[in-house]
Amino acid sequence: MISSREEAHLREERVSSAEVFQGSFLQVVRDSVGLPDGRTATREYVVHPGAVMVIPLLEHPEAPMRVVLERQYRYPVQRVMVEFPAGKLDPGESTLECAQRELLEETGYRAGQWAKVGVIHPVIAYSTEFIEVWFARDLVAGPRQLDSGEFLDVFDAPVEDLIRACLEGQVTDAKTVSAALWLQHYVAGTWSPVWHSVA
Amino acid sequence: MISSREEAHLREERVSSAEVFQGSFLQVVRDSVGLPDGRTATREYVVHPGAVMVIPLLEHPEAPMRVVLERQYRYPVQRVMVEFPAGKLDPGESTLECAQRELLEETGYRAGQWAKVGVIHPVIAYSTEFIEVWFARDLVAGPRQLDSGEFLDVFDAPVEDLIRACLEGQVTDAKTVSAALWLQHYVAGTWSPVWHSVA
Repeated sequence: MISSREEAHLREERVSSAEVFQGSFLQVVRDSVGLPDGRTATREYVVHPGAVMVIPLLEHPEAPMRVVLERQYRYPVQRVMVEFPAGKLDPGESTLECAQRELLEETGYRAGQWAKVGVIHPVIAYSTEFIEVWFARDLVAGPRQLDSGEFLDVFDAPVEDLIRACLEGQVTDAKTVSAALWLQHYVAGTWSPVWHSVA
Repeated sequence: MISSREEAHLREERVSSAEVFQGSFLQVVRDSVGLPDGRTATREYVVHPGAVMVIPLLEHPEAPMRVVLERQYRYPVQRVMVEFPAGKLDPGESTLECAQRELLEETGYRAGQWAKVGVIHPVIAYSTEFIEVWFARDLVAGPRQLDSGEFLDVFDAPVEDLIRACLEGQVTDAKTVSAALWLQHYVAGTWSPVWHSVA
């Protein structure tokens, strides 16, 4: 019922495409598209290589589950944001390689087990970006390897505190709020991913 | 613990700012910023007026709660997406006015009661966009008022089906996955917003 059915009456078809901006970081493309009624329209959007988010779990048999989070100043929104480790895919890199690299660089943790959770699309109106979401557990702490010019704090918190902070508005990063839905069901035992050991 | 504390060691300060692209829809700005260690860096981002998402509730005393959803082709991600009604703020418009307008235009519904749920930031790396989130109930159906060139299907589904579709990957729009977290707790009675009647 929720998933998409026949789509021809909604689909837009590319007529032409041109890069209209190539900046230091952002690339913008403008396409002419054919609408379902045969008319044409313009679509302008950011081209993004895709990204990965890691939800690092600290599981102990006799304590509430905790997660590793970051505080980072996000200039476009002019504030410090609480969020899970994440980063863009490098050319030729698999999503798991990217997840391992971002977790290690930003937090210093290596994970013994990984599970692919899903994909979210953060900006469907004006970016091609997707974020593949991974759980990581069996964490071993080590030194961070931050890029030059990268400043962020790493901390951990109970899953229950994170969920409450999302509901109450202290956490507003959409990828992190989305992660809280999977965490909610993972902790409750109403959903679980498939884990793989990684050397 | 989750909320932000002292931030001076993370903050970036604007040194200069220039518009570098003004397209048909997107505006891109490039700023020079001072980093916490005194060096400078470049930040490039989309300037966005902000948006509103509406979560329209169909509540009946003796049936599971349902929500009104849309299917819409989203060109940047080249697929039909399931999502809640949403749209950009017009100049001078309040967020509630925007919520009422988008709900009416896209679905034909008017709502007797509204509750502000929170705010999410979908693109903290490269856009100023915020999305204010509203619940709407006491819905009365009427004719849609779609913009010319706007094509979307309206349907409704049980909240439980939406949540499951988010967990299993049939729904990937980040604002809609985020909405599912609030819905989960609203249905369970573990969180509730403050409702206001609207004439």
